[in-house]
Amino acid sequence: MHDHPRSVPTPASDRDAWRARLSGVRAESVRLASTLSAEDQCVQSMPDASPVKWHLAHTTWFFETVLLPRANLPYEPFDARFAYLFNSYYEALGPRHPRPQRGLLTRPGLAEVMAYRAHVDAALDLAICHCDDASWQAIRPVLLLGLHHEQQHQELIVTDVLHLLSCNPLLPAWLSPPPSALKLASGADTAWIDMPGGIVEIGRDLPDEWSAEDDFAFDNETPRHQALLRPYAIADRLVSCGDYLRFIEDGGYRNASLWLSDGWSAVKAGGWQHPAYWVAPDDPRLAFGTGHAAGDWQVFGLHGLQPLDPRAAVAQLSFYEASAYAEWAGARLPTEHEWEAAFGASGLSGMTGEVWQWTRSSYDPYPGFRPLPGVAAEYNGKFMVGQLVLRGSSVATPADHGRPTYRNFFPPAARWQFSGLRLAKDA
Amino acid sequence: MHDHPRSVPTPASDRDAWRARLSGVRAESVRLASTLSAEDQCVQSMPDASPVKWHLAHTTWFFETVLLPRANLPYEPFDARFAYLFNSYYEALGPRHPRPQRGLLTRPGLAEVMAYRAHVDAALDLAICHCDDASWQAIRPVLLLGLHHEQQHQELIVTDVLHLLSCNPLLPAWLSPPPSALKLASGADTAWIDMPGGIVEIGRDLPDEWSAEDDFAFDNETPRHQALLRPYAIADRLVSCGDYLRFIEDGGYRNASLWLSDGWSAVKAGGWQHPAYWVAPDDPRLAFGTGHAAGDWQVFGLHGLQPLDPRAAVAQLSFYEASAYAEWAGARLPTEHEWEAAFGASGLSGMTGEVWQWTRSSYDPYPGFRPLPGVAAEYNGKFMVGQLVLRGSSVATPADHGRPTYRNFFPPAARWQFSGLRLAKDA
Amino acid sequence: MHDHPRSVPTPASDRDAWRARLSGVRAESVRLASTLSAEDQCVQSMPDASPVKWHLAHTTWFFETVLLPRANLPYEPFDARFAYLFNSYYEALGPRHPRPQRGLLTRPGLAEVMAYRAHVDAALDLAICHCDDASWQAIRPVLLLGLHHEQQHQELIVTDVLHLLSCNPLLPAWLSPPPSALKLASGADTAWIDMPGGIVEIGRDLPDEWSAEDDFAFDNETPRHQALLRPYAIADRLVSCGDYLRFIEDGGYRNASLWLSDGWSAVKAGGWQHPAYWVAPDDPRLAFGTGHAAGDWQVFGLHGLQPLDPRAAVAQLSFYEASAYAEWAGARLPTEHEWEAAFGASGLSGMTGEVWQWTRSSYDPYPGFRPLPGVAAEYNGKFMVGQLVLRGSSVATPADHGRPTYRNFFPPAARWQFSGLRLAKDA
Amino acid sequence: MHDHPRSVPTPASDRDAWRARLSGVRAESVRLASTLSAEDQCVQSMPDASPVKWHLAHTTWFFETVLLPRANLPYEPFDARFAYLFNSYYEALGPRHPRPQRGLLTRPGLAEVMAYRAHVDAALDLAICHCDDASWQAIRPVLLLGLHHEQQHQELIVTDVLHLLSCNPLLPAWLSPPPSALKLASGADTAWIDMPGGIVEIGRDLPDEWSAEDDFAFDNETPRHQALLRPYAIADRLVSCGDYLRFIEDGGYRNASLWLSDGWSAVKAGGWQHPAYWVAPDDPRLAFGTGHAAGDWQVFGLHGLQPLDPRAAVAQLSFYEASAYAEWAGARLPTEHEWEAAFGASGLSGMTGEVWQWTRSSYDPYPGFRPLPGVAAEYNGKFMVGQLVLRGSSVATPADHGRPTYRNFFPPAARWQFSGLRLAKDA
Repeated sequence: MHDHPRSVPTPASDRDAWRARLSGVRAESVRLASTLSAEDQCVQSMPDASPVKWHLAHTTWFFETVLLPRANLPYEPFDARFAYLFNSYYEALGPRHPRPQRGLLTRPGLAEVMAYRAHVDAALDLAICHCDDASWQAIRPVLLLGLHHEQQHQELIVTDVLHLLSCNPLLPAWLSPPPSALKLASGADTAWIDMPGGIVEIGRDLPDEWSAEDDFAFDNETPRHQALLRPYAIADRLVSCGDYLRFIEDGGYRNASLWLSDGWSAVKAGGWQHPAYWVAPDDPRLAFGTGHAAGDWQVFGLHGLQPLDPRAAVAQLSFYEASAYAEWAGARLPTEHEWEAAFGASGLSGMTGEVWQWTRSSYDPYPGFRPLPGVAAEYNGKFMVGQLVLRGSSVATPADHGRPTYRNFFPPAARWQFSGLRLAKDA
Repeated sequence: MHDHPRSVPTPASDRDAWRARLSGVRAESVRLASTLSAEDQCVQSMPDASPVKWHLAHTTWFFETVLLPRANLPYEPFDARFAYLFNSYYEALGPRHPRPQRGLLTRPGLAEVMAYRAHVDAALDLAICHCDDASWQAIRPVLLLGLHHEQQHQELIVTDVLHLLSCNPLLPAWLSPPPSALKLASGADTAWIDMPGGIVEIGRDLPDEWSAEDDFAFDNETPRHQALLRPYAIADRLVSCGDYLRFIEDGGYRNASLWLSDGWSAVKAGGWQHPAYWVAPDDPRLAFGTGHAAGDWQVFGLHGLQPLDPRAAVAQLSFYEASAYAEWAGARLPTEHEWEAAFGASGLSGMTGEVWQWTRSSYDPYPGFRPLPGVAAEYNGKFMVGQLVLRGSSVATPADHGRPTYRNFFPPAARWQFSGLRLAKDA
Repeated sequence: MHDHPRSVPTPASDRDAWRARLSGVRAESVRLASTLSAEDQCVQSMPDASPVKWHLAHTTWFFETVLLPRANLPYEPFDARFAYLFNSYYEALGPRHPRPQRGLLTRPGLAEVMAYRAHVDAALDLAICHCDDASWQAIRPVLLLGLHHEQQHQELIVTDVLHLLSCNPLLPAWLSPPPSALKLASGADTAWIDMPGGIVEIGRDLPDEWSAEDDFAFDNETPRHQALLRPYAIADRLVSCGDYLRFIEDGGYRNASLWLSDGWSAVKAGGWQHPAYWVAPDDPRLAFGTGHAAGDWQVFGLHGLQPLDPRAAVAQLSFYEASAYAEWAGARLPTEHEWEAAFGASGLSGMTGEVWQWTRSSYDPYPGFRPLPGVAAEYNGKFMVGQLVLRGSSVATPADHGRPTYRNFFPPAARWQFSGLRLAKDA
Repeated sequence: MHDHPRSVPTPASDRDAWRARLSGVRAESVRLASTLSAEDQCVQSMPDASPVKWHLAHTTWFFETVLLPRANLPYEPFDARFAYLFNSYYEALGPRHPRPQRGLLTRPGLAEVMAYRAHVDAALDLAICHCDDASWQAIRPVLLLGLHHEQQHQELIVTDVLHLLSCNPLLPAWLSPPPSALKLASGADTAWIDMPGGIVEIGRDLPDEWSAEDDFAFDNETPRHQALLRPYAIADRLVSCGDYLRFIEDGGYRNASLWLSDGWSAVKAGGWQHPAYWVAPDDPRLAFGTGHAAGDWQVFGLHGLQPLDPRAAVAQLSFYEASAYAEWAGARLPTEHEWEAAFGASGLSGMTGEVWQWTRSSYDPYPGFRPLPGVAAEYNGKFMVGQLVLRGSSVATPADHGRPTYRNFFPPAARWQFSGLRLAKDA
C-alpha cells in the first residue's frame, strides 16, 4: 500500500523551527516590559495609547482566539472573561472593553497576565507539536500573522511607554545606558538621488501557502501591481534635528502659509511650537532638578532627557509638521510609490531602522485589493480612510519586522511614534 | 509698419462678454436667495454650513479684495470692517471672524449686504470697462476664478439652506412646485460598462493666459498627467433610493463587517439608521400635521417632504455610507481616475447633474501639482488631507460649472451635500 | 329674596381692568422688539439665551396652553405644532424643542409669530369678557402669573439681545439715544448702614384668591416666615464701575486668594480679565472704526460702546466676580435675608432699578415652601439647586415687576444679566 | 526667684500622647492600602477621584509643607519635586500637577512613596520630641489639622478604590470576608420623631489653643451661632435599599415631576435607572462568570457584588436621587440645621457610621464665618458654592473622625460616596 503524502507528518524540524520563532517573539515582548514596574505597565496615558499589560494580554488573546481553535485539540481557556477584556477591535469576535478604559483594568494584575501568557504559550507549543497536518496547514498562516501582530505591538509598547513617561513632569528615563538608539543622520548637506520614474512594480502578492522561508506581508501590501511614476529625486538622508531646528528658528510654527489647513488648526489649538518630545530652553520642567542646564534644547527619548543632537533624525513628528517642513524646504514628501521604487537605490541612508517616514500618500487600497478572509479581514482594510502612509521602520521596530513594501499608517496629527521624514522633489 | 498689439485696447465685445457673464452669475446668487426670508438667510445651522447672507457677502468680498486692487482704479471700500467679517479662510488676507460664529452676525442686515453687493458690482463693471490693458490681463484670471468661486458658493447656498430647514422640526419646504429636481435613475438593473484600463490621461493644464472661450479649471485639476489603470467595469447608472432601501432592509446599518472602522464609529455615535434626510415611517415628526401618512418612507428635499421615489438617485450620503453600500453590493467605489477615464463612455447615465459621486480616492495632490501663485494658493491645496474626492455634479450645481476633470472634496462624514454613488468593480 | 352671589357676573370694570393690564403688558413686549430686525429677533447667541422671536412666541404659548383651556370657551389653536416649538421646560406639558436649537427656527417667521400673538390676544380678550364666573375665578391667578411671566421674559429680551450684539465684532448699538439708562451711583465713599439683626419677617404669603389689587408674588417667595439675623451693616450704595476698576488695577483677576475655587477655575478657563461687557483699552475691536479712541476703558451696553462711567453701577458680573470683589474690599455679600430686612432703611440708594444684586445665599427653598399646584409647580421649585439669589431689580426690569421679596436666581458663572453687587459686613 | 511657666518643657507625656495619635493615624492609611496592588494604587478612575498612592503621598506632603517648617529644626526634603506633584489645591503653596493627570504618575513608584512617608514620619517624630515650646505651640494646631486631613483622605481612599473597581467589568471584590460593613437599617416602618423647632445652637467655636483633649472641628463649622427653626419631624431611620427599590419599581427614574430640573437632565444624559453601584437583574456583566444568578438585584460594594439587602441603607446616591426619592415619599430632606438639632434625640438610629445623609442645605458660610489664617484658609471656605451639605458619617469614615457639627459637602451629582438619606417633614 502506498503512502498518502498529505498524511505524512510535517518534519519535526519544520514545526520546531516555528516553535523557536514563536518563543523568540513571545519572549521579546516580555523582555521589553521587564524594565518597567507594574504601575508603568498598567496606566493608559491617552485613548490612542494602550497599557503595556494590555498589549501583553491582547497579543496573547489573539493567538488564543484565532489560532488555538484551528488546532482541533482540547483547550481550556485561562479565563473566559478575557475575551471581552482583551479584544481590540474585532467586531466579528464579539463585544469588547472600550479602548479609552483599558487603563482602568488594575485587575487582572500583571502577575495574572503573565500567567495567562504562560498558559497560552504552553497550549500553542502543544498545538504546533501535536496537531494533525490538516490543522497545521490551517494554523500556519495564522501563526505567521500572530507573530507579526505581536511584533507590531512590541513597537507600540515602546512608543506608548515613552508617551506615558513624557506625561510625567519628572520626565523619567526608561533606559539607563547612554543614548545610542537614534543613529546619526549625516550632518552633511542633503544629496538628491535622481530616479527615472516610468512603470514600477509596487507591493506584494501572497503565497497560497506560507512556508517558513516566505517573507511575510500584510494584506494591505497586495496585490503586486504596476504604477506609473514621473521622474523625481529623493533625498539621500533623513531630515535631522539640526535641519528641523532651523525651520523652527525661521518661524516655521508661526507661518500659516507653510501648513495644510487642518495642520494650522492643530498648531493653534494645541499651541504647538516644536516637536512633541522636544523640551524648549525655557521649559519650567528643566528647573525640576533634572540636572540639565536651561538654555539649550533637549529631546525626551528612550534614555530620558538628552541634549538635542543636530545630526539625529527628527522624530515624533505629525504628518502636518512633516508637510510644513517640506514646504519650508522648497521640497515635498515622496509618495509611497516613489519611496518604494527608490528603496535599494545607491546612496540612500536611513531608509529603515531610524524613523518611519511620512509619505504624501493617503492610506487607500491598492488596485485589486482584497482583505484576507475570516477574522483577519478586519486587520487592515477597515482603517483605509483618513490616515497617511509611513514607510521604512524605526529604532522601535523589531529587527526582522520591516520590509520595503510595508505600509504603516497613522492619522495626520499623531505625534508619539518614531515618525520623521525624508524629502523628495519633482525632477 | 509696426503695430503694438499689446497696446491695442481689448475689443469692447470681449470685455462686454465678460461683463455679461459676471452679471449673470452675480444675479443667479441673488435669485437663489430670493425665496428665503431674512431670517432664513441669517441663521447658521452647524459650523460646517454658512448663512446665505454670509455667502452673498463673502463672494462679494472675494471680488473686492482680490480683483479690484488689480484694476488700478480708485475704489472706496463699502465698509472697511467687512474685510474682517467676510474673509473665509485666507490667512494671507488677515484675521477673520471665526467660522462657527458666522450666524451671530445679525448686523449688517440683509439689506446692507445687498447694498454691499451693488456697490462692488458697480465697481467691478467700471473696472472691466475702464481699466488699462495691462490691468485687464491681470484681472482676467481673477475674474474667472471669482466667477467659479461664486458658483461654488451657489451650490453651498442650496445645500446649507436645505440643512437649516432639515433641522426645523416642521420640515418646511423651500420650493413650492412639485418635485422634479432629482432626475430619475433607471429602475432597471445595473449594467456594467467594461473599461480597458491602461495608460490614461488625467486632469488639465491651465493656459498661460485665459481667453473668454477657455474652459475653466481649478489648480487642483493640474497638471494633466498619465495614470496607469487596470481593466475595470463601472455601473451605467447611479445607486437609487430603491437600491439603498434594500441595503437598509437587509440590516446594512447594523452589520459592522460592511463598514470602515471610522464609519462604524460614526454609525454608533450618531445613531445612524438611514440617510440623513430620510424620514422613517415611524418618525414622530410625521405626526406634526405634515399631511404625510405615517407608514411610508419620506425624503426631505428642496420641495419639502416627499414620498421616497425608488428610482431617484440616493443623496446626502456620507462616504462611509457609500462605502458600506458598495461592500454590501459586492462591488466597490471607482477611483477618481477610473471615473474620469470612463466619462463619455457609451451607455453611462447620471454622470452629471444629479448627485456628486463619492470615489475611493483620497484628496491627494496630483503628481507635479503646484498651487496657483498669490492669494489663490490657499484655494485648494491646503485642504489636501483627510478628505475624499467626489466627481460629477449635482442638481444644485450651476449648469456651466461642472466638467469631467472637476475634483470636489468633502470629509468622509459629510452628510448634507447632494452626494451619492456609482458602483465599480475589478474586471 | 335670596341672591346667589357666585352667579352675579363680575363687574365689567374689574374684568376691564384686567383686560387693560393684559394688553399693556403684551404691547410692551412688542414695543421692546420693535427696534430690532427680523434677523436680530431670530438668532440665538448661546444656549443660555433665547431669540427674541422665541420669547414673543413662548409667552404667548404660555397663555394659550395654561389659561385658555380654563375659560371653557371654544378655541381653535393657531398652529397645533407650536405647542412643541414653544414650550420652554414644562415636562408636564409634553415634549419640546431642545433649548440650544431655538435659534434654528427661521420658520415660523417673525410675521407669523406676530399673527400668533394677535390670535391668542383676541382669544384672551374674549375669554376675559365672556367666560362664566367660575371660570373667571380659575383664570385669574393664571392670568396674573402669565403677566408676570411675560414681564420676566421682557427682561430676558433685553439681556439676550444685548448678549447677541456683544458677540458681534462690530459691537453695534441697539438704542440710538445717548446713554442714560444706568443711573449714577454716588461717587462718594460708601457709607455703612447699621442693621440690628434679631428676628425678622421674610417672604410673602399668597392670598387664597387674587384680587386685581393684590401684590403679586411667586411661590418661591412663600411662606412668610421668621429668620434670626446677627447685627450687620449694609452699604448705602451699589459698587460702581470706578470701584471695580480699582479692583482690576490692583490685580484682582490675578490673585487666586480672592476667589472661590470654582470662580478661579472660571477665571483661568475663560481668560477673564474684566467684566464681560467691558472693552479694554487695547481691545482690537476698537480699531474697527468705532469712533472710540483706544486708550480708555469702554463699556458695551444698550447704547453701544460708551466710555466707562466711574459712577455707574458695575453690571454683567458673575457671582464669582462679585464675591472676589467683596473679598478684596474686606467685606462680604449680604445674605438674601439681610438684603430683604434692610429694604426701606433710611439712606439706602439703588436697591431697585439699576442692577440686580448678588447675595451670599444659595437658592434654597424657604422653610415650609410648597410649589404651586398644577403646571405652575414647575415654575420655580425645580430650579432650587446650584444657583444663587439676586435681589432688587435692574434697568431692564419692567417698572411694576419688582418687589422687596422677589428672589431672582442665576448660576454663579452667569455674566449677561444686569447683575452687580452691594457690600455688607458683620457688625 | 519665680519660675517662668512658658519655658517649662511640655511634659513628655503630652507630646508622647500626640506622637502615639499621629503614628496611629498614619499607620491606618497604610493598613487601608495594604490589600491593594501597586496597580490598584496607581490608577485614577475619573478626575474627581485620586489614586491611593497619591492620597498616601499628598497627606505626607501636607505635614511636610505645613508643619515641619514651624518646628524650626533642620530638615532635608525627601525630593524637592514632590511639592509640585502632591499639592492638591493650595494656590498659596505654588503651582501643582493637574488633578485629572494624577493617574499618570507611575513614577515615583509605590515603594518610593512609602519611603517618602517613612522619611517624613521620622522628621515629624523628631519635631514633636525636640522642638522648643514656642514651636510646639505653633505646631499643635497644624498637627491636629493634619491628622483630620489624613482621616478625610482615608475615607476618600475607600470611596475612590471602590469607584475604580466598579469601573472594571469583572467587578472584583476588594475585601474577601463576607459582608457586614453596611449595618442593617430597621426593616420596620419609619417612625417620625417630632422636633419642636425654636431657637437652636448650631456649630462650634474653636479654642484659642488646642489641647490634646479638645474635640476637633474645621473652620466651616464655626462660629457657634443661633438659628430659628420651625417645628418639624425627622425619620428615625435611614432610607433602606428596600425603600428605594419601591421607588424604582414605581417608575421613579421615569417621572420628571419628582426631580429637580438639573437632576432630570442628569437622569437623561447619564441614562440613570438606579443607584450607580446597583446592578440590575439583566446586567450583561452578570453573565461574566461572577457566580451570581441573573434575575435579582445586586449591589457592588466593599466585598464585591452581593445580593441587594432590603434592610441595608441605600448608598452612593446623588443629591438629585435623594431629593427625588423624598419627593416621591411625600416628604423632604432635612436642612442641616434640623439634622444637627435632632442629633441625640431619643429613638434615632443610623445618624453616624452608615451613610452620610444629604441635607436640603446648600454649602453656604455660617453667619460670622472666617476662614483660618494662613494656608489653612484654603481648606474649606473656597469651596462654598455649588455644593450641598451632608451630615453624619459613613462606614468608610474613621471611627473618631465624625461629630454632630461636621459639615461634609459634595456636588449634587456625586455618586461615588457612601451617601444616602434620612427623611424629614414639616410638623
